[in-house]
Amino acid sequence: MTALRPLRPSSKVLPVDARGHNRSLVLQTLYREGGRSRADIARETGLTRVTVSALVAELISDGLVVELGQREETRPGKPATLLDLDRSAFVIVGLDLSEHSVFTGALLDLDGAISARAEVALDGSTGDEAVAKVVALAERLIEQATAPVLGIGVGSPGVVDLGGVVLSAPNLGWNGMPLQSILADRFGLPVLVANDANAAVLAEHSFGGADSDAMLITIGHGVGAGLLLGGTPLFGSRFAAGEIGHVVVGTDGGAVCACGKRGCLETWLSIPNLIDRLEGEQGTARTAVLQEAGQRLGIALAPVVGALDLSEVILSGPTELLDGPLMAATVETLRSRTMAEFHGSLTLRMTTLGPDIVLRGAAVMVLSGQLGVS
Amino acid sequence: MTALRPLRPSSKVLPVDARGHNRSLVLQTLYREGGRSRADIARETGLTRVTVSALVAELISDGLVVELGQREETRPGKPATLLDLDRSAFVIVGLDLSEHSVFTGALLDLDGAISARAEVALDGSTGDEAVAKVVALAERLIEQATAPVLGIGVGSPGVVDLGGVVLSAPNLGWNGMPLQSILADRFGLPVLVANDANAAVLAEHSFGGADSDAMLITIGHGVGAGLLLGGTPLFGSRFAAGEIGHVVVGTDGGAVCACGKRGCLETWLSIPNLIDRLEGEQGTARTAVLQEAGQRLGIALAPVVGALDLSEVILSGPTELLDGPLMAATVETLRSRTMAEFHGSLTLRMTTLGPDIVLRGAAVMVLSGQLGVS
Repeated sequence: MTALRPLRPSSKVLPVDARGHNRSLVLQTLYREGGRSRADIARETGLTRVTVSALVAELISDGLVVELGQREETRPGKPATLLDLDRSAFVIVGLDLSEHSVFTGALLDLDGAISARAEVALDGSTGDEAVAKVVALAERLIEQATAPVLGIGVGSPGVVDLGGVVLSAPNLGWNGMPLQSILADRFGLPVLVANDANAAVLAEHSFGGADSDAMLITIGHGVGAGLLLGGTPLFGSRFAAGEIGHVVVGTDGGAVCACGKRGCLETWLSIPNLIDRLEGEQGTARTAVLQEAGQRLGIALAPVVGALDLSEVILSGPTELLDGPLMAATVETLRSRTMAEFHGSLTLRMTTLGPDIVLRGAAVMVLSGQLGVS
Repeated sequence: MTALRPLRPSSKVLPVDARGHNRSLVLQTLYREGGRSRADIARETGLTRVTVSALVAELISDGLVVELGQREETRPGKPATLLDLDRSAFVIVGLDLSEHSVFTGALLDLDGAISARAEVALDGSTGDEAVAKVVALAERLIEQATAPVLGIGVGSPGVVDLGGVVLSAPNLGWNGMPLQSILADRFGLPVLVANDANAAVLAEHSFGGADSDAMLITIGHGVGAGLLLGGTPLFGSRFAAGEIGHVVVGTDGGAVCACGKRGCLETWLSIPNLIDRLEGEQGTARTAVLQEAGQRLGIALAPVVGALDLSEVILSGPTELLDGPLMAATVETLRSRTMAEFHGSLTLRMTTLGPDIVLRGAAVMVLSGQLGVS
């Protein structure tokens, strides 16, 4: 017996879909493992050698796959030709719009390594002016590209729908801003726009070793989260999944939040609020402030960890504030407020990807959308 | 642009998979809509008429589809023959093991309607003795079946893995009990065992009008939840998704729970605890007890609603306790503790399926697993 199937099959499967799926399967095998022969790929994917050979021929002619040379064989017979994804065949433009005063961007190779960077100061721009700065940043990066651009990935603050329309990003004054189609029209390239925390959790999954059930919390001017369930990003019924910054934490009051409520998670945990609370504090008083913030995060997350049975929660933000008493208090609070039987082994850790996590997540969106690899 | 694809394609698509998928697509169209011609099905599924005719011929010979007769046409030409799923072709055995003192079971038709019932008193049985009672109950129902049995669906308390092994059900003394394979071996029929709340949310989706993003809370001796995200049930990293009964609620103490912690959701909300608190209370004092329980449910759910961006939460349990001040307090608490912008329109309601919800969910598991319909 296997898992229940997804309910309500909603679209037919055509031979062309199967072909696209199998093409992605070959690319994925090479992307993750590299240096594989056609026979290796057939064995690992379960596809026939004939199918693999046809798909590989197509991928070589598309410039996506290259022959590396022949494997040194220990057994007699014709040595196998090794194949790899041509990781320098394309570059990806990644943009991170989540910082408060600056838009950052990078050129990334197919492994998510950064080869060039650019940034543009926001200077308080909002609305169309802010969009013009996104366009200028992308333009500057595309000019520097030394290989064809596979696509543009963008991590935006706020609520973003599946068509890349930023439904709401108050700091940028965007309400229903069709950023994805603006960029696609301007550059004639595939463009993918998603919420910054959703981009970040994809990066952590592809490059940071996250499980296929993971929650990544981004802690900066605001507090947000990206969720991956069964390897699939969760978007939510109004594309607002992960918007936990304005959930009230605890039943004992708290500071008044910018949103008007009292005791929202951001009042305890956003970096500006945390720096305010830490001002002038030293030693144990400083530790106590960090611990309290960590406890509040644990209180907020306990029902989510319980309901979703998460095995891993990852934090992204300033390491000097988060990694230490704050994180220790979060994990202790989480364990003391959920069933030890299931959540005693929960992992809480900092991202290994540092401040480039959203840029790299933007690249994963393009890799996944254009090549079906991640 | 469409949604990001699920990450990491992990298995090949074969023509036989496409055929199975398309067969389910035809069945699903007939299951939901009934009275359709071959041409209607082709139009609605996007499959060719030739493919639809071949699949329909196969389904008729399997006894799953019947011809109803000819449609009265307003236009000239050959009238179309209408088809339907033969809803009496098979029966399904559904078992609900979630009640404290009795196992209940039913025979259901393919629409989830109950045609016969049986039950067996638990009398404190645990372990293999409890399994023997499950077998006896299934046997009694199978004897009453007037059509071939499509399969056996079981909603069990506790944590159940995807192979139908009950990893932990303390009340029944089951730890790693392979209930699904025991029943399959005994009866030679397809068997599906899942957690009772997971079964219940499937029933609510198929028969109760729940969205494809929904959380169903079962409130009885314990408190549990079943989650459907994008139409797919969530199981969690240790198959313990929805285990929210032992999450601590609030930061102001609470009663000591059977699990040893203080202030778990069950201490406020389980039916025995609620009845204890209500004992001897009348009028406003009674209302206050119900409101407090509802507030605690709202406090526990707020981070989950925020993180998942749920549009609908459904309660299952005794209507006389839940539907009134308790539920009103839950929805008010949820709205006051999350972002009004997104969650102001959240729906909280009682299930429309009453106490048969787990039995009907068990039938959905069989329908979905055996026919690909729901």
